[in-house]
Amino acid sequence: MSSEISIADKQMARQNGIVQPLLTDLYQITMAYAYWKSGKVNDVAVFDLFFRTNPFQGEFTIFAGLEECMKFLENFHYSNSDIKYLKQTLPENIEPEFYLYLKELTCKDIIVSAIEEGSVVFPRVPLLRVEGPLIVAQLLETTLLTLVNFASLMATNAARYRMVAGKNVSLLEFGLRRAQGPDGGLSASKYAYIGGFDGTSNVLAGKMFNIPVKGTHAHSFVTSFSTLDDIHRVTLTHAQTREPCNLLESAMEWRSRVSTVIDVSTEESSDGELAALISYAIAFPTGFLALVDTYDVKRSGLLNFCAVALALNDCGYRAVGIRIDSGDLAYLSVLARETFEKVGETFNVPWFAKLTIVASNDINEETILSLNEQGHKIDCFGIGTHLVTCQRQPALGCVYKLVEINGQPRIKLSQDVGKVTIPGHKEAYRLFGADGHALIDLLQRSSEPAPVVGQKVLCRHPFQESKRAYVIPSYVEHLYKICWKDGRVCTAPKPLSKVRERVQSSLRTLRQDIKRNLNPTPYKVAVSDDLYNFIHDLWLQNAPIGELS
Amino acid sequence: MSSEISIADKQMARQNGIVQPLLTDLYQITMAYAYWKSGKVNDVAVFDLFFRTNPFQGEFTIFAGLEECMKFLENFHYSNSDIKYLKQTLPENIEPEFYLYLKELTCKDIIVSAIEEGSVVFPRVPLLRVEGPLIVAQLLETTLLTLVNFASLMATNAARYRMVAGKNVSLLEFGLRRAQGPDGGLSASKYAYIGGFDGTSNVLAGKMFNIPVKGTHAHSFVTSFSTLDDIHRVTLTHAQTREPCNLLESAMEWRSRVSTVIDVSTEESSDGELAALISYAIAFPTGFLALVDTYDVKRSGLLNFCAVALALNDCGYRAVGIRIDSGDLAYLSVLARETFEKVGETFNVPWFAKLTIVASNDINEETILSLNEQGHKIDCFGIGTHLVTCQRQPALGCVYKLVEINGQPRIKLSQDVGKVTIPGHKEAYRLFGADGHALIDLLQRSSEPAPVVGQKVLCRHPFQESKRAYVIPSYVEHLYKICWKDGRVCTAPKPLSKVRERVQSSLRTLRQDIKRNLNPTPYKVAVSDDLYNFIHDLWLQNAPIGELS
Repeated sequence: MSSEISIADKQMARQNGIVQPLLTDLYQITMAYAYWKSGKVNDVAVFDLFFRTNPFQGEFTIFAGLEECMKFLENFHYSNSDIKYLKQTLPENIEPEFYLYLKELTCKDIIVSAIEEGSVVFPRVPLLRVEGPLIVAQLLETTLLTLVNFASLMATNAARYRMVAGKNVSLLEFGLRRAQGPDGGLSASKYAYIGGFDGTSNVLAGKMFNIPVKGTHAHSFVTSFSTLDDIHRVTLTHAQTREPCNLLESAMEWRSRVSTVIDVSTEESSDGELAALISYAIAFPTGFLALVDTYDVKRSGLLNFCAVALALNDCGYRAVGIRIDSGDLAYLSVLARETFEKVGETFNVPWFAKLTIVASNDINEETILSLNEQGHKIDCFGIGTHLVTCQRQPALGCVYKLVEINGQPRIKLSQDVGKVTIPGHKEAYRLFGADGHALIDLLQRSSEPAPVVGQKVLCRHPFQESKRAYVIPSYVEHLYKICWKDGRVCTAPKPLSKVRERVQSSLRTLRQDIKRNLNPTPYKVAVSDDLYNFIHDLWLQNAPIGELS
Repeated sequence: MSSEISIADKQMARQNGIVQPLLTDLYQITMAYAYWKSGKVNDVAVFDLFFRTNPFQGEFTIFAGLEECMKFLENFHYSNSDIKYLKQTLPENIEPEFYLYLKELTCKDIIVSAIEEGSVVFPRVPLLRVEGPLIVAQLLETTLLTLVNFASLMATNAARYRMVAGKNVSLLEFGLRRAQGPDGGLSASKYAYIGGFDGTSNVLAGKMFNIPVKGTHAHSFVTSFSTLDDIHRVTLTHAQTREPCNLLESAMEWRSRVSTVIDVSTEESSDGELAALISYAIAFPTGFLALVDTYDVKRSGLLNFCAVALALNDCGYRAVGIRIDSGDLAYLSVLARETFEKVGETFNVPWFAKLTIVASNDINEETILSLNEQGHKIDCFGIGTHLVTCQRQPALGCVYKLVEINGQPRIKLSQDVGKVTIPGHKEAYRLFGADGHALIDLLQRSSEPAPVVGQKVLCRHPFQESKRAYVIPSYVEHLYKICWKDGRVCTAPKPLSKVRERVQSSLRTLRQDIKRNLNPTPYKVAVSDDLYNFIHDLWLQNAPIGELS
């Protein structure tokens, strides 16, 4: 077991090889030099990493990517070759001492506080708070954003699919071929699993992250067989008796019998398809799940599948089911279910009615909602492109903003009030009602006492004076935990399955109307009265002189 | 130099560490077993890799990713740990000999023919033709698709930005923080460069792929300074005389003088911003490009920038320019240009009029077209999210289809005629007119003689009988070159800069109406008369018996 782990570790290290300090925007390094050069080496800063809008026109987001951020901090170090490259790239007149300074940099003086990975999170509430030397904290910006943005977007997308599909349907991620390159595909598999998918087709993701992998065969497998003569092997050993069964003969016989029951002529069905399914069944007698839409689901695929499944049954094996990858999935799944019920009843094979029906083909949230309305009979969706590319909104706009320097708050003003930052070192609390639902997220100045259960708290909209309300929490959750301090990760790494559970338990604390697909209710994020006044005093101090704009 | 190369190679190897046989869909491996088990080990197959629709509602695509595909073939090998993982993952009753077979697999018997990387390509014309043992060719599917799909999509997206921006504007890729993870960001930088971008902010991409890297500073740099007291260092050595210059004093004086010229009060401008710009100029006197929208471009940023640029000028340095990251980019760029012209004229600094204006902030193709109409004065666009996520269409739908097995053609029929595959081993030719423009791409059966210059060729729509035309080519390009054979790459690797040139030269062969943004004319892809008849005979043979559907 230990050797396996070390191999997986090595592979992860290889993947993580590119998550290094140079995986950043050049301006972080030029800024670092300008800070260094202007005597700001000992300045200490606080940065908030947050987003401004939930993705997918929804009202919640799942926070993911924290563990990768921790690995990045652990390994943060400029190699000799990095320094050499920077020397070639930056202007010649950079002072050589700066490179010596960079060479020694680590994250030992950085403190990162974060919301628990897998939690539901909301606009403006910082996901990460990064404190420490200004230069180091600034140098982390791009990489942290890269690691959090896509991970959170994918996990959120996956969680949304899970919600519309319901608990009783399996969801498989099939998107590798459409992802943003190899690592995009691996990240998609990982964060889709965290968000609530049950498995992936991506074998390497399965190996690296211990995610269940699934898959059977493609159309090309079926079309590679033309006639029954293409079958080179027809016998299978009976599961119990170990007697040889002739699967071809048996399937041919069953095809005739089934054809009369489901009113499809055997002449209409493809012999090449039958040959392919028999060959596949012989290879995977315990895992026979067949693609049935290569020629025609109704006139060929279902008949051939039932014939082979019944032949397998005679040989002591239970078929798993079918996959449909084209056409009207609602209609075809209902047709398939009715066929299985009828065949199962006619030939007294009761489990036939429960055969698994997998559907794939360009499925997105809307497709699933529409299939739900049409009363589909699908047990499992395989989802690729729309899931992994997050087609509906392919980027989450996390930003990383300076909110304090040397103990002095910083505010970034903007003509667009939504872009004004909330200044200072803050804490975030989630207030829960008596029914266990989250009521509101509250940002406070770190100097304020935490909200207390049973005591009313004034919650204010950060920018609109008139919007305010008292809330009496039944439970208060302090959202931040220190996860990096003194050069070490402070929280035990959690297996993906735990993060995956956290997603579902965290989602359960949200009211249904916040989670619904159409016109969800916004969840409220508020600031304390103290923080409200702090923001607005600072705003006033920084207001431009001159005309109103 | 050689040590540098070896370091870069090592880093690329690390990145490519995840491009391995397990980076695939599980069904490729289950199919491989079913083929193996059913005696199809010696079957030989031909697969075509192609797409069906150009992305971004355009009428062309740029083919990229070929070199990565070659590296994948070179390194194709199941490790012991891969085999161990597969044994755990596949059903128990898999014959052990299959794993021995997998362990020995390489791509030595595969032949890959491909269109040149960086070429414009069109729907249905295979980009890659993969021939060889059925099992091996099948096992390559997902990884090849992963490597071609995103690379080609990104290169196409970048080429479209280049077209709308025109030749005289610089384009920089700023998308790392919004990409699909670390490798998505690196691939985006690489293929944006190939597609026509001039550089990237991504330092690691610069190091790995030798792409120019660019960047200056962010808003946080500006907000980290509050007052003029935050400047710790005010002197800069004169570029020629080596005398010390007090940049603060000089900039303060210039700020007063410029303020009267551009009618902005010095009181309106931010002292913190001035402090930041002075500090940045002292660090980068030869590369002073300043972000001017932290507070207010008109009332603060431009005034402070001009003051520092003129102070630098006194000290023997020429400022580079400004970046604007918010607001009305057309208006602000015109305002900035007018300001620079006026200030340059008033103080007799003629090069001031030519200062570089960089614009960023959520720019996409439409924004650039709209800015063009408004007569912007921008010299350089920094483009992030929309470029790297290909927001308008985040996936290219390349597919990989079996077209021949053991010398017998295969056709995949579909109720959707656009999804019918063109069967058999084929060659592709591009026919050019006398003016050098590409007229049509022509697919033929490999047994047919190539089209001849000056002789008319019948070109037919693959599926619509009535659509046909004679074409007399002035030049004929055979689109395929064998790039992999006998276990080796057959074509010399080209530096990225050459592939980048190929993109532009290939695009120049397309008529303007095919490339235009709005309602472009489709480029025609045809089949020879022989191939037309071949397709339709086969179609008839495979037509289902029964009702019309």
